[in-house]
Amino acid sequence: MSGFELDRRLAADSLAVADLSLCTVRLMNDQRFPWLLLVPRRADMVEMLDLDAVDRQQLWEDIRTASEAVRAVFSPDKLNVAALGNVVSQLHVHVIGRFRDDTAWPAPVWGVGKAEPWPDSARSEVQRLRAALDS
Amino acid sequence: MSGFELDRRLAADSLAVADLSLCTVRLMNDQRFPWLLLVPRRADMVEMLDLDAVDRQQLWEDIRTASEAVRAVFSPDKLNVAALGNVVSQLHVHVIGRFRDDTAWPAPVWGVGKAEPWPDSARSEVQRLRAALDS
Repeated sequence: MSGFELDRRLAADSLAVADLSLCTVRLMNDQRFPWLLLVPRRADMVEMLDLDAVDRQQLWEDIRTASEAVRAVFSPDKLNVAALGNVVSQLHVHVIGRFRDDTAWPAPVWGVGKAEPWPDSARSEVQRLRAALDS
Repeated sequence: MSGFELDRRLAADSLAVADLSLCTVRLMNDQRFPWLLLVPRRADMVEMLDLDAVDRQQLWEDIRTASEAVRAVFSPDKLNVAALGNVVSQLHVHVIGRFRDDTAWPAPVWGVGKAEPWPDSARSEVQRLRAALDS
């Protein structure tokens, strides 16, 4: 058993999408941005440097897979990829599709305005992401 | 010849530190944060996904090396690693040491206040970074 448990705040702010080899993938519940969270299923990880070499390599693969899925499903103008963790320390990586006309552009998305939850119809976005992550 | 040329705005905002296998490493000229920029020496790259598989792997290694150097030299409370590129499109990765008492904490550093240029004495920080990147 890995002892991994998804941080409550990350869970509360996002919707389940899929599991990749190392990471649980969540969609931030904010329809202003196509915004994935990748959370390595390892207990007590804070920095990418904390992962062992095998997991660190897998994280890189999962970031690539998630980036390609966001690109395939949402066709953003730009990808933003970041590991910050200043508020929630559990290691997580943001993969965000950005548009030149999104509400935060060109600033980063963190702390900008208020999240706008996805409507129930987001189920189709989740399905498309799931398919893209699986391919 | 790769045709690579460092973006003028990135060059203007930062100091030369060293070259890693793929990336030119610069120190942002802002003493509020120990903040490295990693710029792959490849022409016309915008997204990490644009790199070929060999370069993408090397970028990951360079990120690890730079992260360890920032940790070794500055002992930050947290590392922030990000590829954004919404303003300057030339592919570059930020590796930033964060402190719980820095001026932006816990927010990201981008767009917060004004840069405070390093004094001439920063030469010692650059030397220590250079040594850490080399080890």
